[in-house]
Amino acid sequence: MSELRKDPIINRWVIVASERAKRPLTFPAAREKKSGGFCPLCPGNEEKTPEPIYTDWEPASSDESMRWRLRVVMNKFPALERDGVLAHQTGGFYEIMDGVGAHEVVVETPRHDESIADFDDEQALSLIHAYRERILALRRDPRFQYVLIFKNHGFEAGASLEHPHSQIIALPIVPKRVHEEMMGAEAYYAKHRQCVYCEMIQHEIDEGRRIVLENSDFIAMAPFAARFPYETWILPKRHETHFEDLDGERRVKLAVILRDVLSRMKNILNDPPYNFMLHTSPCHESDAPCRYHWHLEITPKLTRVAGFEWGTGFFINPMPPEIAAELLRGEHPDSMPAEPVVLREEK
Amino acid sequence: MSELRKDPIINRWVIVASERAKRPLTFPAAREKKSGGFCPLCPGNEEKTPEPIYTDWEPASSDESMRWRLRVVMNKFPALERDGVLAHQTGGFYEIMDGVGAHEVVVETPRHDESIADFDDEQALSLIHAYRERILALRRDPRFQYVLIFKNHGFEAGASLEHPHSQIIALPIVPKRVHEEMMGAEAYYAKHRQCVYCEMIQHEIDEGRRIVLENSDFIAMAPFAARFPYETWILPKRHETHFEDLDGERRVKLAVILRDVLSRMKNILNDPPYNFMLHTSPCHESDAPCRYHWHLEITPKLTRVAGFEWGTGFFINPMPPEIAAELLRGEHPDSMPAEPVVLREEK
Repeated sequence: MSELRKDPIINRWVIVASERAKRPLTFPAAREKKSGGFCPLCPGNEEKTPEPIYTDWEPASSDESMRWRLRVVMNKFPALERDGVLAHQTGGFYEIMDGVGAHEVVVETPRHDESIADFDDEQALSLIHAYRERILALRRDPRFQYVLIFKNHGFEAGASLEHPHSQIIALPIVPKRVHEEMMGAEAYYAKHRQCVYCEMIQHEIDEGRRIVLENSDFIAMAPFAARFPYETWILPKRHETHFEDLDGERRVKLAVILRDVLSRMKNILNDPPYNFMLHTSPCHESDAPCRYHWHLEITPKLTRVAGFEWGTGFFINPMPPEIAAELLRGEHPDSMPAEPVVLREEK
Repeated sequence: MSELRKDPIINRWVIVASERAKRPLTFPAAREKKSGGFCPLCPGNEEKTPEPIYTDWEPASSDESMRWRLRVVMNKFPALERDGVLAHQTGGFYEIMDGVGAHEVVVETPRHDESIADFDDEQALSLIHAYRERILALRRDPRFQYVLIFKNHGFEAGASLEHPHSQIIALPIVPKRVHEEMMGAEAYYAKHRQCVYCEMIQHEIDEGRRIVLENSDFIAMAPFAARFPYETWILPKRHETHFEDLDGERRVKLAVILRDVLSRMKNILNDPPYNFMLHTSPCHESDAPCRYHWHLEITPKLTRVAGFEWGTGFFINPMPPEIAAELLRGEHPDSMPAEPVVLREEK
């Protein structure tokens, strides 16, 4: 029998239905992996992207020229544009605003075929640094209410370019999803005088079954009401509202646990397409009244979101998170890299 | 410059960014269409599906045997199961319920290669009848709070089987999305003493730009804050809370407008993958206090939902709904069937 599980923060139900993974599929699922042609993000093609906003250089070597390790550039095809005044039109039946914001691309490495899963500690830290620096810079603009950092890896997860990159979008409004989580955390606090995320972390450490990885400062866990197979959240153990408040030592810990989780996914799930999204507090939210707890959500894209999800806002997940965590810990007999565990639906 | 548009019902913002459609794509997008092998939903294989719950027979002919035109069967791999008592466990930190519900498959036609877009009026009406009959039957079960009807057409839209079918899921809880829409409609009513959907329909008829099709009882329109390219909603012009209250004459009108919209999408967009979802009031919601207005949402799947959407609950739509409506009306110079308009990203 399947189970209905409720997310403790935003009251979103998930149907955990492991029998669903066995259903037949008459569509042939072709997963194209090969990239085609010219890459505008590769070294040598820097003039194809707008001027860099931020560059992390390789440590000086015997080489003549400086080499970049990571660069942040403006998106050439931005969803929102930097210039403009925030004009809010509320006249008439509908509400509309000019698309003012920022849309940046983080080129994570000069190497086209590498991914975060393959990074060394230095490279992983360089990425976390870049995210933090860009948030600190963008939040100075009073027009921006929120800075979203996210990554689309692989075609099925929405990437248009194969070269490893993540994206930064600064928004003039607080996202619906973040607002829901803040309201959920606020309601929990009003009732229990505790941060719901801190309580959840403690509960998960006590129970242990859904933990993927852990270090002194961070936990990587499969959430109880996971929407997607192998969904994994990384949370700071210490209560913290804003990602950008992370100190230097803990940035290293985050870089390492993020790389390690992605590396396990790559090895055990055969380099799956995935998204990750940083959920942090709005720019102008002070720490004091906000009960929010920043975290990173990683969602492999092995199932397809369809009519049920769009019609309900609920999800059907054929993979119990306890088994997903066991597999990602490497404790399950099926988790040998030689025999990648992929849902039958996607084969 | 792109625009931020707010859905008038649930305060969901959408970025309408037509420049985004021009961005390059280094992934080759292979759209596999061919089906493979045995189909459990084709005539002759009836024993491969569970016993039918509902069958619509072809009118009697000179033929010996009766032929079905449409059948509804239990899903062989159900997300929720019919048997069981609703056990709600609230002890501990998390909330959990047994997966009690119903999951049915509507086999829309005996013909494997046909689709609703090709139906004649009789077949289209047969489908609407089946949806209504199943809702009327399922709402009698006091364990079910909501009946969702939806369709996944094409692999990219989540279909596992190619044979034309839709799905019915009865849930022991009211979906988050429906709850949000009801709350939005309630809040609008409290302020304006009007149904927000009725007001929207009037506004759209006055303006005209986003109308796709119209008859005496229904309007098909591109919503102002469309999440997806060519997203189209079909709404009854008369205020009505529950889909199943539709009388016979208006069921014919709905069948015809649904078939016509899907037929235009098939011709103009080259048989795109799509989802549709019926949004109607919960089973045990009486008409009186509920300000909700049932409708059908059709969402072609031409873009990929990615990190931005998951992280925010907002959407980026590269196709302004005014242009989408113009194309679907057949008034735009590009809307010739010989030159299908498909977003460059998906080519």
